[in-house]
Amino acid sequence: MPSYKAPLRDMKFLMQDVLQAEQTLAGIPFYAENETHSADLAEQILEEAGRFASNVVQPLNMSGDAEGCTVQDGVVTTPQGFKEAYRQFAAAGWTALDGDPKYGGQGVPHVVGNAVSEMMISANIAWSMYPGLSHGAYTALHAYGSDETKDIYLPKLLSGEWTGTMCLTEPHCGTDLGLLRTKAVDNGDGTFSITGTKIFISAGEHDFTDNIVHLVLARIEGAPQGTKGISLFLVPKYTVNPDGSLGERNGVMCASLEHKMGIKANATAVLNFDGAQGILVGQANKGMQAMFVMMNGARLGTGMQGLGLGEVAYQNALAYAKDRIQMRHEPRVVASEPADPIIVHPDVRRMLLTAKAYTEGARALTLWLSLNLDIEHHHPDEQARQDAADIVALLTPIAKAFMTDNGFTSTVLSQQVYGGHGYIKEWGMEQFVRDARIGQIYEGTNGIQALDLLGRKVLGDGGKKLQKLAGMLEQFVEESQDIEELAPYLETLGKAAQQVGTLTMVIGQKAMQDPDEANAAAVDYLRYVGHVTYAYLWALMSRAALRQIASGNDRDGFYKAKLQTARFYFEKLFPETRALAATIKAGNAPLAVDDVAVFGFEQSLVNA
Amino acid sequence: MPSYKAPLRDMKFLMQDVLQAEQTLAGIPFYAENETHSADLAEQILEEAGRFASNVVQPLNMSGDAEGCTVQDGVVTTPQGFKEAYRQFAAAGWTALDGDPKYGGQGVPHVVGNAVSEMMISANIAWSMYPGLSHGAYTALHAYGSDETKDIYLPKLLSGEWTGTMCLTEPHCGTDLGLLRTKAVDNGDGTFSITGTKIFISAGEHDFTDNIVHLVLARIEGAPQGTKGISLFLVPKYTVNPDGSLGERNGVMCASLEHKMGIKANATAVLNFDGAQGILVGQANKGMQAMFVMMNGARLGTGMQGLGLGEVAYQNALAYAKDRIQMRHEPRVVASEPADPIIVHPDVRRMLLTAKAYTEGARALTLWLSLNLDIEHHHPDEQARQDAADIVALLTPIAKAFMTDNGFTSTVLSQQVYGGHGYIKEWGMEQFVRDARIGQIYEGTNGIQALDLLGRKVLGDGGKKLQKLAGMLEQFVEESQDIEELAPYLETLGKAAQQVGTLTMVIGQKAMQDPDEANAAAVDYLRYVGHVTYAYLWALMSRAALRQIASGNDRDGFYKAKLQTARFYFEKLFPETRALAATIKAGNAPLAVDDVAVFGFEQSLVNA
Repeated sequence: MPSYKAPLRDMKFLMQDVLQAEQTLAGIPFYAENETHSADLAEQILEEAGRFASNVVQPLNMSGDAEGCTVQDGVVTTPQGFKEAYRQFAAAGWTALDGDPKYGGQGVPHVVGNAVSEMMISANIAWSMYPGLSHGAYTALHAYGSDETKDIYLPKLLSGEWTGTMCLTEPHCGTDLGLLRTKAVDNGDGTFSITGTKIFISAGEHDFTDNIVHLVLARIEGAPQGTKGISLFLVPKYTVNPDGSLGERNGVMCASLEHKMGIKANATAVLNFDGAQGILVGQANKGMQAMFVMMNGARLGTGMQGLGLGEVAYQNALAYAKDRIQMRHEPRVVASEPADPIIVHPDVRRMLLTAKAYTEGARALTLWLSLNLDIEHHHPDEQARQDAADIVALLTPIAKAFMTDNGFTSTVLSQQVYGGHGYIKEWGMEQFVRDARIGQIYEGTNGIQALDLLGRKVLGDGGKKLQKLAGMLEQFVEESQDIEELAPYLETLGKAAQQVGTLTMVIGQKAMQDPDEANAAAVDYLRYVGHVTYAYLWALMSRAALRQIASGNDRDGFYKAKLQTARFYFEKLFPETRALAATIKAGNAPLAVDDVAVFGFEQSLVNA
Repeated sequence: MPSYKAPLRDMKFLMQDVLQAEQTLAGIPFYAENETHSADLAEQILEEAGRFASNVVQPLNMSGDAEGCTVQDGVVTTPQGFKEAYRQFAAAGWTALDGDPKYGGQGVPHVVGNAVSEMMISANIAWSMYPGLSHGAYTALHAYGSDETKDIYLPKLLSGEWTGTMCLTEPHCGTDLGLLRTKAVDNGDGTFSITGTKIFISAGEHDFTDNIVHLVLARIEGAPQGTKGISLFLVPKYTVNPDGSLGERNGVMCASLEHKMGIKANATAVLNFDGAQGILVGQANKGMQAMFVMMNGARLGTGMQGLGLGEVAYQNALAYAKDRIQMRHEPRVVASEPADPIIVHPDVRRMLLTAKAYTEGARALTLWLSLNLDIEHHHPDEQARQDAADIVALLTPIAKAFMTDNGFTSTVLSQQVYGGHGYIKEWGMEQFVRDARIGQIYEGTNGIQALDLLGRKVLGDGGKKLQKLAGMLEQFVEESQDIEELAPYLETLGKAAQQVGTLTMVIGQKAMQDPDEANAAAVDYLRYVGHVTYAYLWALMSRAALRQIASGNDRDGFYKAKLQTARFYFEKLFPETRALAATIKAGNAPLAVDDVAVFGFEQSLVNA
């Protein structure tokens, strides 16, 4: 059975040595006044969270997968131990961690809150999604709810007494929410009657809490077609009296649960809304805007699922590779045994280092973005907030897609280290692969993330956000000219930043003639910019490590390991960009095939 | 629920237009005399097999996955319908298809037999493995069994009355068979007593047949340690009397079945041999040699699992992509609907074309190698046999690893086309992913295939086999100079062939100093040569398609589609070689990290 130990050392390195989070947070009154900015507090929180993850949550991971969730007459039973672990989690205050103190939250920075989330994902992704979805609902309500709604609902979500969900998808529409049919009829008393069917609702029904707060996209009768007629509603499982006590059972029922490839212990519900009472959140017909607040957090959270699963898969593959002896290295490494531990074989090292480099790169991106979220939400300086918001907006689709793609790769390679045993359930590695696969699909498929990045975030603002990122890279390169050890990385970074500019221009020009040119390039483009971002972060990490080594602080070899992993990243993973540059330049032409001949598709796109 | 239709048109194209198999086979007396060489017969067989695959085998695929196999007191029950389908399969003569007529086989060429195998894999991989393993056992016995053994066992295996297995792996050794502990004691009466535990035995126990013929690797008492002391034994589940009737229950028992990620309907058995009666197959201590005969067939067969699953996943993703409407293309394609079928979106096309190009490339490689097997086994000219054997030896690890890696990628991309629905069991796509994953692991992991290719097949003979392949490429390029449409591909092929030579030399030189240099490069090298091989096959297919178009034979657009898929392959998939060239050149240095610092592994390889 797999085990898990929180990567506290790496988190501390990133927060303190690389991001110097305490200094930044100390300059933000919200954190300084709440006294949640200090590195010491962060360390205490992470240690405690690590214990909870390893001791309470992780032991339920395999049994949860085997048991799954069941539903009878709309009542869902989660796997043994799940609700008890959740109640402990809530009782210990973890659900309130980065919540607003005004509503009972602890006001801890996102950079700490997200490190805690990573741990819960590593320990048990299916379990982590129950509080995870709640957090998303909290965020949207906090941003768009009326004061009255917030006063009632936010304390319950933060205390963990209730949980929340996001209800977007319908059977005929996932990506294309403009097609949604769930309707809302104004009751004239400040409430609406919501009717329709939502599918794929994660944590949509369960036995953790007395109430569940659904945030539901629906179309008010008479509203425009498409996304401009969509509104967001709060639909509780039980209606809530003004004093916060529970009222009647509302008209939302779990019709069934999906049988899935993975994350089996999370209840993925089909929810039928049958005249359920709902409250409008935000303005009528502006539901997509509110939804995106929830989605952006969820997208980073989904990216972190790639990180968390990559980490736990790597930890276990590493242990197995040290333990399993098979074949003899030249020269022998453990000559007393009939064979050497497989960790000495170069290809096993390649697989392990790939998972390690992707995982540590993903953690750096996550915590960097999280600190930028802290700045975006609370920094006193408007320009600082705007810069942070731009970086978050630009890199969120990369965090979601690049991190889940690499996370899936990491779980597959970690499984591969086990040979045949990796395919057997009892070792637990195949579960990581099955669980990781969903991250590439939900919260907007990775193809949709790529369109968001290239179309909306890059071409949509004439490349301004991208230039901010490029500016940071250039500044880093300039600042670091004197550091001899970084020279090859600085050269790579400089060239790559230039190449991103060129590729963006090439695509942008072609896309003006034919929008398919952007769509054809988007996925490769996202991977390209993802690699450039990781390269930047690996160079940053290397610089921080070099400083510590120069100061004589590398007693345990942690910083040396960081430098060697960086080298692996630059020499073995980053070169994927060479292929991507070529496939981006190839454009849409190789995809613009004759539909009738190639696909047997009667409506030929080419002849249209 | 997924469906499957055999790709008869593509198989016919490859056999007739590209490989001109009939001409080759007509020149081989074995096939000419058995009258099994004709294209007409091949077509009839494939049509019939396609019907059987779609109508009998495929409908059991999802139910088989859901039910799995069960074991009680050593008795295994396979999923409903499985044994009946097998009995129909055997009764119709499919188990004897490419068997030796001397033992009741039909003497059909491998090029036809393997096309039939592909269909059964697509229809139901778990089911296909029962006759598949039998075929492997037949091949080894045919090559190494005594006449007496062959006379008794081969007719039963070909008629399908009995099935066979390969028993190699033990709990402590998979890759490293030299460590195996199963022992054989000479009974002095021409039999041996076999004792030990074998794991991961596919089709190791079941309810299809009265007897199962296990081919077991074991060490005769007193034999040398390592692979030089391993012998191959035939151990039937029931001992067999000289007249072929069943004797006593032999001392081999199914102790348990593995719970696996996929191929759940195939019984993966732990077999305990407790003084079981066995017969030596081939010479004592020469078991590895016989095992490789079995393994080489099994490796191509495993590669074909990537092909078969890629094909069926693609077929279903294609149908879904035509049916599912979501988002609007500019300009609109089906303006009467609120959205366009997703097949019109470039990234969906990219995913479909990737699966299609990999699958059709894999089929070309499979049938080309199969025809070479026919030549190797039966051609009257020794040089022709040797040339064919060299190509088979060189390309078998590529067929195994490249085809299963690409097959896994194809199933993942096909699943991705379905969005969230791809993750739900009822759509069947996630099963293809789970089933495809094992191909990268068993029959020698893909990492081991890469070592076999680079170490044994390329560097091991000073590049002679590789030069034969290069010679074929050069000849093709020279022959095709006048075909204008092929010009860009010929240039790519020419450069790539040169680059393979350079990379091989670079690795070979470095490996003389340090064997880790070959091991570090092997996986990337295999993918590189794999791409060069596919590029050659896509160019061959393009030339054949151009000829048919020039002759006015492209009424249905099949040949046009082939040309467009070739273009996609060269412009969107082949450029991976640019990254591979860079990572190959980076060598072992980025992997030669400090083990203590990076991996927390006490025995430091670097300091050793």
